[in-house]
Parts: sequence; structure tokens; C-alpha cells
Amino acid sequence: MNSKPFAIGVDIGGTTTKSGIVNHRGAIVGTGNVLPTGMYFSAESFVEALYKALLPAMEKVGMENIRGIGVGAPNGNYYSGTVEYAPNLPWRGVVHLAQMITDRFGLPCSLTNDANAAAMGEMMYGAARGMKDFIVLTLGTGVGSGIVCGGQMVYGHDGFAGELGHTIARRGRKHWSTGMDGSLEAYVSATGIALTAKVLLDTWVGPTLLRNFKEEEITSKLICECVLQGDELAQKVFDYTGEILGEALSNFVMFSSPEAIILFGGVIKAGDLLMRPTRKHMERNLLPIFQNKVKLLFSELKEADAAILGASALVWERKEETLLEKSAFLM
Amino acid sequence: MNSKPFAIGVDIGGTTTKSGIVNHRGAIVGTGNVLPTGMYFSAESFVEALYKALLPAMEKVGMENIRGIGVGAPNGNYYSGTVEYAPNLPWRGVVHLAQMITDRFGLPCSLTNDANAAAMGEMMYGAARGMKDFIVLTLGTGVGSGIVCGGQMVYGHDGFAGELGHTIARRGRKHWSTGMDGSLEAYVSATGIALTAKVLLDTWVGPTLLRNFKEEEITSKLICECVLQGDELAQKVFDYTGEILGEALSNFVMFSSPEAIILFGGVIKAGDLLMRPTRKHMERNLLPIFQNKVKLLFSELKEADAAILGASALVWERKEETLLEKSAFLM
Repeated sequence: MNSKPFAIGVDIGGTTTKSGIVNHRGAIVGTGNVLPTGMYFSAESFVEALYKALLPAMEKVGMENIRGIGVGAPNGNYYSGTVEYAPNLPWRGVVHLAQMITDRFGLPCSLTNDANAAAMGEMMYGAARGMKDFIVLTLGTGVGSGIVCGGQMVYGHDGFAGELGHTIARRGRKHWSTGMDGSLEAYVSATGIALTAKVLLDTWVGPTLLRNFKEEEITSKLICECVLQGDELAQKVFDYTGEILGEALSNFVMFSSPEAIILFGGVIKAGDLLMRPTRKHMERNLLPIFQNKVKLLFSELKEADAAILGASALVWERKEETLLEKSAFLM
Repeated sequence: MNSKPFAIGVDIGGTTTKSGIVNHRGAIVGTGNVLPTGMYFSAESFVEALYKALLPAMEKVGMENIRGIGVGAPNGNYYSGTVEYAPNLPWRGVVHLAQMITDRFGLPCSLTNDANAAAMGEMMYGAARGMKDFIVLTLGTGVGSGIVCGGQMVYGHDGFAGELGHTIARRGRKHWSTGMDGSLEAYVSATGIALTAKVLLDTWVGPTLLRNFKEEEITSKLICECVLQGDELAQKVFDYTGEILGEALSNFVMFSSPEAIILFGGVIKAGDLLMRPTRKHMERNLLPIFQNKVKLLFSELKEADAAILGASALVWERKEETLLEKSAFLM
């Protein structure tokens, strides 16, 4: 084996695509230019741009030392290597992205959804190092999840497992995009938290800083800042969010009994404001055999890096699978 | 390898313990005498009785042909081989049952909880043959579950994964034993279904056959019989049960995206009365990418056999693990 193996990690987001070259120790040794994903109306032109964006960094480490490409993308399917009906990407229908990347780069490509990539990153380089059973929940504009059981990523029968943001948490709030009644994402995403503030504000009679802002200015970040200034209503927003999130986490724990649940994404900037009520309500709804066992952690990785690291980790995983298949064949 | 390998399967229940000797094709070739579990106040006397109960059948196939013993027990832990604080068994605290059985029988013993044993049975010999991703839900006096992801039983970090009966389904009904508010078991176990009938009966003004019975006579079996005679209230009991069960199943699907969910246990005798509303409400609460994909099936195994077969399957699983470890060692 070559002494300098590298893997490419690509993080495709609705707004931008970031990429980097990662060594086996999880250090990003080079990066590609950031691409404005929405500007590429065809997947072909996107793949071409990705190749050009990475070419200088690839040449620097030596093309022959690169083992493969891992991609995290919204609605990415690990089994088929496709991106399917992703509402925030410009490409319609089913896109065979892994195959297209392999054809252009001449390298094996594995693809999964962005939350699974984050979970891979946490397992190999972050808060889940050494763990075989954990759940990563990404709390951003939406809510995604990556689940690992017994050291294996849970992909499910069709590659779409781990849509915990769409599980029913509490009836009474219709999701703005899916139309579902009471899904977790409707409450604990950044969008959901802002909505909670608006709902509570409607019936709040006491003083609150939140009244000084227009509806569209109320974001989870602003609500955080108001709490730090002692605003009671803003605190209630996080208490309510933590109550819903904690209840949902207790159900996830009774499903897969993880060692840890790792929270990831923009919303975790709220820190203890969110963590305290979440932990309280999670513990309160657990069967005694699960109480005071599950670690509730924040991601240790820089958000931008985690997605690239996680995606690149798919390359090493693929390698191990091949070794296992080989050993089974030799038996 | 001997041409006639056998495995012992033991199904420990609160009332009785059943055991059998199983060949590699899943045929039960001999059985042990049924034991009244509750009569053995010490685990030592129970193990001794189990040995004597199985001895004639073991001698018949030849002791040297038996590869091991698999045990399914309430609150059984696969990792530690212990039975921990099982409320329906006469032994207090933590019982190291697998080790005690190994010591008496001179055979390796693997132990897991009863619902996981049922799932193993379905995977090797029942409705889940050839499947790598499925969930077995046991609907009896209580509600248990066994979850398989990517061909692996989900044990979780501590061996206690898969307590789906205790996940929160709908607030408003306190569980008679755990005290939890709104857990699935409080609604869809045989006990929960009878309770639903009593609750609905309190405010029902129309005619119903259920009024002809004393409260303690109302069981899920009786409710079934009333539906078959056209009783409207009895039908409503199953519609309500199916609504709660279907909603819960949709959450489980969005967790692990299984190929099938297999329902098992006494309650499934209700057949289509339960299946129809369950399927409807499961589909209604799924994200479109999961709709009309998941098979909702009844167990194909005889209930008494399934537990013995499933427990015996632990013996073969153990064998495969050892092979895998060996192959890793040889690499």
C-alpha cells in the first residue's frame, strides 16, 4: 500500500458545494474552490466544474495517491449512488451522480446523504470516535439524522433510513413544506424555532425584546441573544423546543439504545439554552433502564470541515468492505 | 464438521418455559418437558430442572452433536448473558443465566430478550427469510420488539435496544405498570385494547354487545368476536388501536426504513380488523419516499415454535461470528 493515501470529500449543499482532500488521519490537506451549486443547471456542468475546482489540489498531492471520492448530498442514496428529487438542488428527478463523478475523475465514488456524511465524520474524527452505537442529529434550516448501530451506518432497505426530522413529535403544527402534521423538523429546526417564537408572541402579554423586531427578523440566533439579555419569552422558546426535542430523543433511545446522541448544525450555537431542557425532557420520558446512560453531546467538528471529512470517510469505509468481501471469498 | 449439528432453543416466559432441539434446517426434532417458570424460586433450581427436562431429547440426538444453547427471556441481555430485573420472573436483580446454563450443560449459551429471539426466528425460518432490514413487533400482554438493520440484530450500546413498546405514542393514557404517559404498549397490547374498549364504552350511547359482559370479561379476543357479529363499538376499538399503531409504525419506518414490519403474538388473531386501520394510518403519516414500500406482515410461525426456533438460531449466529473473527485473524 502506498504510504500517502488521500481521499476527496465533497459536501453538496443547496447554496454552495465545498470540497477538500483529506489524509488518512483526517487532516484536510487541500481544498477545491467553493462552487455556487444553484448556478449549475445540469449535473454534467456541475461535475465538470467540480473537477476543475479540485484539479490544482489533486495535482499537488499526486493523482495516483487519491483512493476515491466521497460525496454527501441532500437526498443522496448510498445504495444507488443517486441524488433523488432533492428540493433544494437545481437538478430534477433521479441523478446518477456517483457514476458521473467516477466517469469524469476516473476514481471510485461513494455517495450518501448529508446527515449520514456528518455521522461518518463524527465516527472517524469527531465526538463519536470509538463508538459503535450513536445518532447524529443535524439541526439547521432542516433536521437530518445519521444513525450508526453496531458500527454500521443504518441505510435501511432502500438507502433512505434516518429521516428522524420527519417523525411525528407532537400534533398541532403543519410543516410548511411537507404538509405533515407535527413532525420534529417543524419544531426544532431553525425555521421551527423562529415559528415557535411567533406563536408564543401572539399570546404573550408581558414585556419582551422580541417585539422590537419585525417578524422576518426573528431567527433562532436573535432569540439566543434575547435570552442572554434576560428575556423571559425568548427563554420559553428554548424551553419549548427542548421539551419537544427531548421527548423525540427518548423515543430514538428506546429504538436503538445509543451510547451518545450528537447534535450538530447551526442551532447548537444556542448551547446550554437548548441542551438543558432537552436533557431534562429526554430523561423524564425514558424507561428506567435507559436513564442517565446516554451522552448528549455537541459536535466537536467545525461545521464546514465535518461534512468534507465525513464524505471522505466513505472512501475508507468502501475499502474495508472490499477487504471483508475478499476475506469471505478466500475462506 | 459433523453432518448432524443441532441447537437447543429455550423460551422462558413468565408462566411457562418451553424448550426444543432444532436441526440446521429449522425443524424441531425433540422437545423438553414444559416447566412452570414461577415455581423455581432460585435460578439454580430452574437450570437444574431445565437440564433434566431436556436430557432425554439430548441423549436421543447424541450429546456430541449439540452445538450450543440459545435462550430467549424477558429482559435478557445479549452482551452480558444476564436476565436483569425481569418483573414477571421469580428471580430478583441480575441473574447470570447464560453462564449458569453453560456450567450445567457444558455447552456455549447465548441469551437475548424474547422479542429479539422472535425476530431471529422470523429471519431464519419465517416471514423475514432473506431480509436484511425488518422489525418484529410482538403484540401480546405487553409489546416487545426486535430490530434488524443491515442483517444485524440491533442490540444497542448496552444490549437493551428495541423497547418500542415503551416509546411515546400519544399522550393521555398512563401505563398501568411503568407509569409512563402515552406509551405504545398502553394502547396496542391486549391489555391496552381491552382498556380502550372500556374507555369508549363509558361514553357510547348506541347499542353494543360489549354491555352484556362484565368489565373483567372484556378481552381483545371477545372484542374480535363482537366485530364479527357486526358490533359498531367493537369495530371502533380496533380502528382506534390501528390508528395509534399505524402512527407509531410510521415513525419506526422513518428511523430504519425496513423492508417489512412483522406483527407477532396473540393480538394478531384480530387479523384484518387490526391490519386495515394500521396500514392506513401508517401510510398516511409517512414521507412520500417511504409510502407503499413497507410490507406489513403477520408472523408465519406458530407462536410456541417461533420462540424456540429463534432462540436456537442464536447458536448458529454465534458460530458465524466466530468464523468471521477467525477470518479477520487470518488476514
